Amino acid sequence: MADNKMSGRNKYAVGIDLGGTNIKIGLVSPSGKITRKYSVSTQADEGPHRIIENIKIGIHTLLAKSKVHIEGIGIGSPGTVNSEKGTVENPPNFPGWDKVNLGRAISMEFEKDVFLDNDANVAAIGELIFGNGMKLNSFIMVTLGTGVGGGIIINRKLYHGDFGAAGEIGHITINYNGPKCNCGSYGCIEAYAGNKYLTERVRKELKKHRDSLLLKLINNDHDLITPRKIKEAADKGDKYAHSVIIDLGTKLGAAFATVSNILDISTYIIGGGVAGFGKPLLDSIKNSLTSRVLKPIKPRVKILPAKLKNDAGIKGASALVFHGY
Amino acid sequence: MADNKMSGRNKYAVGIDLGGTNIKIGLVSPSGKITRKYSVSTQADEGPHRIIENIKIGIHTLLAKSKVHIEGIGIGSPGTVNSEKGTVENPPNFPGWDKVNLGRAISMEFEKDVFLDNDANVAAIGELIFGNGMKLNSFIMVTLGTGVGGGIIINRKLYHGDFGAAGEIGHITINYNGPKCNCGSYGCIEAYAGNKYLTERVRKELKKHRDSLLLKLINNDHDLITPRKIKEAADKGDKYAHSVIIDLGTKLGAAFATVSNILDISTYIIGGGVAGFGKPLLDSIKNSLTSRVLKPIKPRVKILPAKLKNDAGIKGASALVFHGY
Repeated sequence: MADNKMSGRNKYAVGIDLGGTNIKIGLVSPSGKITRKYSVSTQADEGPHRIIENIKIGIHTLLAKSKVHIEGIGIGSPGTVNSEKGTVENPPNFPGWDKVNLGRAISMEFEKDVFLDNDANVAAIGELIFGNGMKLNSFIMVTLGTGVGGGIIINRKLYHGDFGAAGEIGHITINYNGPKCNCGSYGCIEAYAGNKYLTERVRKELKKHRDSLLLKLINNDHDLITPRKIKEAADKGDKYAHSVIIDLGTKLGAAFATVSNILDISTYIIGGGVAGFGKPLLDSIKNSLTSRVLKPIKPRVKILPAKLKNDAGIKGASALVFHGY
Repeated sequence: MADNKMSGRNKYAVGIDLGGTNIKIGLVSPSGKITRKYSVSTQADEGPHRIIENIKIGIHTLLAKSKVHIEGIGIGSPGTVNSEKGTVENPPNFPGWDKVNLGRAISMEFEKDVFLDNDANVAAIGELIFGNGMKLNSFIMVTLGTGVGGGIIINRKLYHGDFGAAGEIGHITINYNGPKCNCGSYGCIEAYAGNKYLTERVRKELKKHRDSLLLKLINNDHDLITPRKIKEAADKGDKYAHSVIIDLGTKLGAAFATVSNILDISTYIIGGGVAGFGKPLLDSIKNSLTSRVLKPIKPRVKILPAKLKNDAGIKGASALVFHGY
């Protein structure tokens, strides 16, 4: 294996993507190659103790016949994560999980350093070390999915803020009188761009767009509206579906202009399912952001797609081990 | 002098507040005491060469019979400032001033280190070293005046961003479809809270509030609307004037919620003329920000008034010398 030759020894990390449905675990080389992987059901409904046991079982299984040296274990988790302390607080969809020291539980079992961060920060570190951020000094990682997540890289380090809660790009206000957001505020970008909000909006608007190809693609069944179907319709020339993507980019660009004016960081890496809209979305974000951001920043705006797709969570978590926070 | 005893020698800084009308220059001790000061007309209309000469004359006059040791010269300037290079670009109200290396011009004349930053950053450093930020690790300085300026302090350092343009709190979008802002974008907080926008709005609204005490205080002359008059009317119980202050705080709070959700910084220091609205404004900001910001940050929200009032520019500029950037 090339990595062994390069480093002169078997130096690997365990990367863990702790999801609501599955726990994905991989053995990852310093160059980001997954040499072995394993998936186990999260069983989130059975409470924190079961989840932690499942993580342990998964790691033991993965490492069972492995002789490589494990540098450490990286975990990307939903919820509010305190990387320093190792705690994970209130992950959505993990009933009964209040505040758990996941880091300590895993490090005691395996006697290894455990590096823990939230999903979006892990995605940012993944792109920084293995993806489209490899040559960047500073950038904003944005994950477009059920929610809108964010990770801020400044001078090749994750920015965590005073108490580890920084980078909540999804909760940038774009209209202080806008629709209510899940977080309790109004007009957050997530309340427009989150998957659920986006499909709900399309569901309503389709009543006025009865000639849209999208309606045919979903057999008039509104429950089948997904970003993938919207993209399919747009790719086939449907004007309404195309306008949904352009409008989404316009709104994201407005949110990003705020970020760039505060941080003077002008490169964004866009990942997550909704990023599947591809080039039309990225172009629309760029147009909107460039038109709104302050003049000295305009010429520097860059919108890149995420490079890590499958196994981004495993790779990003392993990057925490190799790179630190 | 106490400072001499403390430091054991005559260690002073020259602090310069470069304004559109006057250049204020002070000799400042490490504890922020101004022992001597001098003011000279900027003569901005006569171009950059004249302005720089006036700064030089001012410093020479100030130091003429002084025997203290000058550690360095600090300058707070309008416009886009590159602290590292010493350049000042396009200050509003300085006709013919494209991009000038002000730092070099002054350091060559006096053979001293020159520290240069923009007004709002200088206000932030002033509060950090001599004001209400003395015991804070991280905070956001906001200056409410003609525009809305900002300075970001992270771990007791100014955050400048990739190219020195960070901290533009005034150009946070609060409504992507809102009124056009001077910067070219729409719905920036400055387009609601900047002095000019604010008085213009009151001018329009007074047509519907003909019983407002404010109309009497300005003798029905709309050109006399100022934050001071609005405050006077509110203090005397005028409901409309009070509502203007509360609404301003609500909007500022929405902008600050975005900042806190991005940076996980929850303390704001508010200065500038419009901050003269005092406690009702600060309370309204706090209410709005607390209601909108993400849950883990809510209990930590603090809104403080600036401590430095008169000579804030001179003191802040001198703090650059004692503290660095």
